[in-house]
Amino acid sequence: MSRITAVDLFYLAMPEIRDIGDGSQDCLLVRVEAGPYVGWGECEASPLTSIASFICPMSHSACKSVRDSVLGQRIDSAEDIRRIGDQVRANSLDLLQADHTLSGIDIALWDLLGKRLSEPVYRLLGYEQAWPKRPYASVLFGDTPAETLTKAQSIRQQGYTAAKFGWGPYGLRSVEEDADQVYAAREGLGDDAHLLVDAGTVWEADIDAAEDRLPALEDARVTWLEEPFVSGAIDAYRCLSRSCRRVRLAGGEGSHNAWMARQMIAHGGLGYIQIDAGRIGGITSASDVARDADSARVVYVNHTFTTQLALSASLQPYAGLRLHELCEYPLEASSLACSLTQETLARDDAGLIQLPDEPGLGMTINLDTVRAHVQDVAIVVNGETHYRTPAL
Amino acid sequence: MSRITAVDLFYLAMPEIRDIGDGSQDCLLVRVEAGPYVGWGECEASPLTSIASFICPMSHSACKSVRDSVLGQRIDSAEDIRRIGDQVRANSLDLLQADHTLSGIDIALWDLLGKRLSEPVYRLLGYEQAWPKRPYASVLFGDTPAETLTKAQSIRQQGYTAAKFGWGPYGLRSVEEDADQVYAAREGLGDDAHLLVDAGTVWEADIDAAEDRLPALEDARVTWLEEPFVSGAIDAYRCLSRSCRRVRLAGGEGSHNAWMARQMIAHGGLGYIQIDAGRIGGITSASDVARDADSARVVYVNHTFTTQLALSASLQPYAGLRLHELCEYPLEASSLACSLTQETLARDDAGLIQLPDEPGLGMTINLDTVRAHVQDVAIVVNGETHYRTPAL
Repeated sequence: MSRITAVDLFYLAMPEIRDIGDGSQDCLLVRVEAGPYVGWGECEASPLTSIASFICPMSHSACKSVRDSVLGQRIDSAEDIRRIGDQVRANSLDLLQADHTLSGIDIALWDLLGKRLSEPVYRLLGYEQAWPKRPYASVLFGDTPAETLTKAQSIRQQGYTAAKFGWGPYGLRSVEEDADQVYAAREGLGDDAHLLVDAGTVWEADIDAAEDRLPALEDARVTWLEEPFVSGAIDAYRCLSRSCRRVRLAGGEGSHNAWMARQMIAHGGLGYIQIDAGRIGGITSASDVARDADSARVVYVNHTFTTQLALSASLQPYAGLRLHELCEYPLEASSLACSLTQETLARDDAGLIQLPDEPGLGMTINLDTVRAHVQDVAIVVNGETHYRTPAL
Repeated sequence: MSRITAVDLFYLAMPEIRDIGDGSQDCLLVRVEAGPYVGWGECEASPLTSIASFICPMSHSACKSVRDSVLGQRIDSAEDIRRIGDQVRANSLDLLQADHTLSGIDIALWDLLGKRLSEPVYRLLGYEQAWPKRPYASVLFGDTPAETLTKAQSIRQQGYTAAKFGWGPYGLRSVEEDADQVYAAREGLGDDAHLLVDAGTVWEADIDAAEDRLPALEDARVTWLEEPFVSGAIDAYRCLSRSCRRVRLAGGEGSHNAWMARQMIAHGGLGYIQIDAGRIGGITSASDVARDADSARVVYVNHTFTTQLALSASLQPYAGLRLHELCEYPLEASSLACSLTQETLARDDAGLIQLPDEPGLGMTINLDTVRAHVQDVAIVVNGETHYRTPAL
């Protein structure tokens, strides 16, 4: 029997963080140890806040630190990982950030368990094999249609058969300017590629604003319109879906538990549900949603805009679901994100991504990258140090 | 024209935090200044995590610190408060804890604006008058039915005409033991009082477990069963509501934005929607939900288990809605919570609670209490102090 002996959090960041929609500029890396076994995971967004939620003093019985529910726990099986997650959710019920923090820990626990049992994670999830996924190059819109055209041409030259353009000016300017952006992307990608558009919640819940953009999206044969609205505006999603002819709606990355994703699947009129394993509570919750989506004939897609470690983690939950073929592939990731792991999930000759067959997530952390980017953090309450960046 | 010149966060705590469901043991107090005007607010749960979200370094354009969207903003009108909230939601989209942090700031901004315009907050919300509310004494179940009986008798002797029992052993032991607890509460309160039961999400989404408890709840003429399930399990709420005869379901305190509450109102089969102004994004979001609930014929109730400052804040959003009469009234609050303000919203001769007619929230912070309970916190990143407990 093994118990969790250490959980260490490392806040990594690029020397300069730019005010753009690039989520790969920092990272909260999680290392979990159980005796001789080590697993690695990653939490999405705001490392410092997640660190605080990991070590904070108790507020009351349903608002304890995440650490409290993890350290010392038994870790021998997949059921143990699920039990630990349930415990975090119950003991940190009133601690909102806990779901993000749990995510990286859950991922690290799956990695650890896979290494210990000498199995890739997707097999521990019950999948016989990992089907190859079709990566879509995920990039930001250019500031102008001309820039977007150039980006799209470059993506095509690199051999991608699918690409997503998002954020940047899209949705913030006129309907015509947005249309020009979409047409530029289509022109650069060529007629055959999957073109996806990400509005980044820009219209919050304004159905009219989204509907105004539909003709150009239909005309440019866009596969999906992603996040026209905030995650909670499920009724707005459903309304908009009724105005779509061929374009499908995609959303769900904001889900920080499986319940939220299930609501979107059941009531949002989505064609695609996008799950970030680094937010929803890790691989456990993500794979629950993948199976629910499959049953509901909604296509599951990962949301990943950070490291290759996060990419491997985000593909495991639907690795065995052959019909759910697309996968997000961060193409403009920072040097931190690109160099965090020794391995890269590169495209094969058919242009597809294959998960490694190595134990766990199949990724090796590049400790030099960690050393070069780690932030030295101290959190002190009444003279007592509650967190200090741990030693590697 | 005024601009926000300072936002200061104070982490207050009792000397000892016990592992019980008492949410009044600590508190994150928010002070906002705009020139000569000062407003006070409070965020629910895990002060340290909310402090981190307030000052954290930017991760990317949609993951900035909460402070970034607040400091220096114009604050002349209710529209300014709404605009600041929208800005926080957009700029901190990927920062989960931000909703809790915004809540205390939004409350403080309403307090400040009310003081500046010499109006109580409920009038700034468009309500002609504040209708009195019927307080229900909110307490934890005793460990045994005998203890619960004693608590209920004491509540009755204090003149309360409504009481809620929650958490403790309820839902964790057998159906019979849970029934005994409910009958003990009814016996102690007497036949005429409103009896409310709070399951504290104990059955997560297990409809059968909840249904097993319904006969005793019906038999004891319980007004509502609160939080049988986690907030996200909306379909489970709806299913259970179909098995209720006279008992109604209550829930929603976990809502950290208005969208979540609206989903519960629209699809959860609730009789009562419970909103914590310290979590949902403050008075702005809470009052939006109150009006939506009123339109949907779902009764709005505050969720408050902390200070009298939080109580005043939580009553403003539905002060003018006469038919929404019940209000949660923390009866076992800690000495910190009881002494934070000079004023107490006490019951009048009719046993009802009346909001003060003073400007803002009508509450004066007791600075001695703040001094006696403030935690000395420092958060340092790469040698730079990002947060230090501010001076009073």
